Amino acid sequence: MRPEFPERRKRLAQQIASRKLDALVVSAQANIRYLCGFTGSNGLLLVRGDGWALLLTDPRYEIQAQQEADCLVRITRKPLTRELAAELGRRRLRRVGFEAGRLTYADYESLKAALRARVQLKPVADAVESLRLLKSEAEVEAIGRSMAIAAAAFEKAMRAAREGIREAELAAELDYQMRLLGAEKPAFETIVLFGENAALPHGKPGTRALRPHELVLVDIGAQRDGYASDMTRMAVLGTPSERVRRLYQIVLDAQQAALDQLRPGVTGGMVDAAARKALERHGLDQCFSHSTGHGVGLEVHEAPRLGKDDKTRIQPGMVVTVEPGIYIEGWGGIRIEDTVVVTSNGSRILTPAGKELLRL
Amino acid sequence: MRPEFPERRKRLAQQIASRKLDALVVSAQANIRYLCGFTGSNGLLLVRGDGWALLLTDPRYEIQAQQEADCLVRITRKPLTRELAAELGRRRLRRVGFEAGRLTYADYESLKAALRARVQLKPVADAVESLRLLKSEAEVEAIGRSMAIAAAAFEKAMRAAREGIREAELAAELDYQMRLLGAEKPAFETIVLFGENAALPHGKPGTRALRPHELVLVDIGAQRDGYASDMTRMAVLGTPSERVRRLYQIVLDAQQAALDQLRPGVTGGMVDAAARKALERHGLDQCFSHSTGHGVGLEVHEAPRLGKDDKTRIQPGMVVTVEPGIYIEGWGGIRIEDTVVVTSNGSRILTPAGKELLRL
Repeated sequence: MRPEFPERRKRLAQQIASRKLDALVVSAQANIRYLCGFTGSNGLLLVRGDGWALLLTDPRYEIQAQQEADCLVRITRKPLTRELAAELGRRRLRRVGFEAGRLTYADYESLKAALRARVQLKPVADAVESLRLLKSEAEVEAIGRSMAIAAAAFEKAMRAAREGIREAELAAELDYQMRLLGAEKPAFETIVLFGENAALPHGKPGTRALRPHELVLVDIGAQRDGYASDMTRMAVLGTPSERVRRLYQIVLDAQQAALDQLRPGVTGGMVDAAARKALERHGLDQCFSHSTGHGVGLEVHEAPRLGKDDKTRIQPGMVVTVEPGIYIEGWGGIRIEDTVVVTSNGSRILTPAGKELLRL
Repeated sequence: MRPEFPERRKRLAQQIASRKLDALVVSAQANIRYLCGFTGSNGLLLVRGDGWALLLTDPRYEIQAQQEADCLVRITRKPLTRELAAELGRRRLRRVGFEAGRLTYADYESLKAALRARVQLKPVADAVESLRLLKSEAEVEAIGRSMAIAAAAFEKAMRAAREGIREAELAAELDYQMRLLGAEKPAFETIVLFGENAALPHGKPGTRALRPHELVLVDIGAQRDGYASDMTRMAVLGTPSERVRRLYQIVLDAQQAALDQLRPGVTGGMVDAAARKALERHGLDQCFSHSTGHGVGLEVHEAPRLGKDDKTRIQPGMVVTVEPGIYIEGWGGIRIEDTVVVTSNGSRILTPAGKELLRL
């Protein structure tokens, strides 16, 4: 996707100019990767209002930066904020934006302290994120490849699920399969929860062993070529109880209601409300303690949010999860989640996995 | 380690009082875990000058927070900074410190905007980190258990290393073994680099296949009970060349020189200089492009830094890596790394793995 970098910087440059800035300092790792391809953990990218860009990083990344970065590179042993301040002075950049949500207060202070008096720092929110919100075709394909890896790993690894297996063992199996299938790493800590543990929406796999007729919740995503994916599926060891089958169908219907609502022009809040209303009909909306979904891309949680009262207008090219769930303390939980791309007239599911309750 | 939490908060309270603050807002995840046990990804911990503490988090973590947190818990759907501002007002806390290196500029601004006029926010550096710098016996044991998992996984997984295996496959195997041995996850992205790829100190495992007589660099650490570990070992498929053997011995000697220097009273810079000087004797100091080591604990990179001119005084209870390396573009790299605890009169290596060049 190398040819995309200059194009992306050009679009960012328009934003820089429209905010009446001379340049923007990009500090978020995913944003740096998006704009120039560099994947190292320590870097600052300076982008000028005319699209010119300079990456600052330390000597550990000397070779890697030359290989990856599609722009000028400067290696420095100094703190990056200090080198940057000197660069701003040399180039007479006066009105300089920074990523307020991505720079620590301490780094902001150290940058400010190193600057010449005439340079002004301006907090900027979501400049690069607003570009990343709409995925190109190549990006949707990348997310699709990442999703296919997670789904295939799920299918393979679940064959190892049997009575007595521990949550952490099954999680290890899932991660192993993702890696063998070409993932760089899991996009997030794979969640595997058995029985009553599934009542924790963000619980961590532990030593709990699987018992007959118990529910298994698996929330999994891969990272491939930098792009994340995200899916949740449920399984049961043996025969599901009547209650499990009933609740499963209710969550599945709620997910479908949200998927049906997802299309250009609606708001994130409207998609969320569709899922919430479907659960409300069964008195279960109080058991749904998180948002219906979130954007997925170079980060596994990014804009937009499909949450209560969210005003973001859904547009074609957005990639989001749709993942209603219910959580009942002492009993367990059920969540069903797909990663989905918004199309010109609706949406298309990128998760290639059936949604029946899997029997182990 | 539950009984440690109130003791830790008491020590923090002394710091809060000595800085003439009424309270400190703790935002770093590892610091929150250290002070109250909560492991969720979204939380703010308010600690008062008398040791009283309140954890704020969102509904996703309602059950988990009650289970884990050894302090008061408040669940809120509001932005945590807003709920916190209200709490500071109610409790008439006026001089409030915040973790300047751990809070984004945007969160700082949103907290400030929500505060009553009389509340003053004061940037604080490394208050909790300075407590975490010295590990308790229980913590050293936890790091030792984490290290033992990584070392055992290394031993097991390297049996799979053979001609044609890809870097990413071997990395998958290493991670899988760590998980089966009880790791929650890798402490960082496991590094596996073959041949000339090892010239990248922070390279990522890719599709490169292993060829006869090539060097293999493995940098691996586990996370167990929240604690990280970190080691690097080298292997060769078949017979090492004369150059490899010579360079390996030089790096091994440099590591030993640094280990010999590591004891209470010296500075981080002195330990770093010992390794650098040993490499300089062979004209290889220019090939050593990073610091000699870093602290290890709840985070895999924490204080102290064993870097050039670092002034930190080494004290008993510090846990650090010692990891000199040389990197030669186009040829490859060699690094040898142990995790080490500083004792009353020297240091003790926590990495239970031999340091000969492993033959595959």
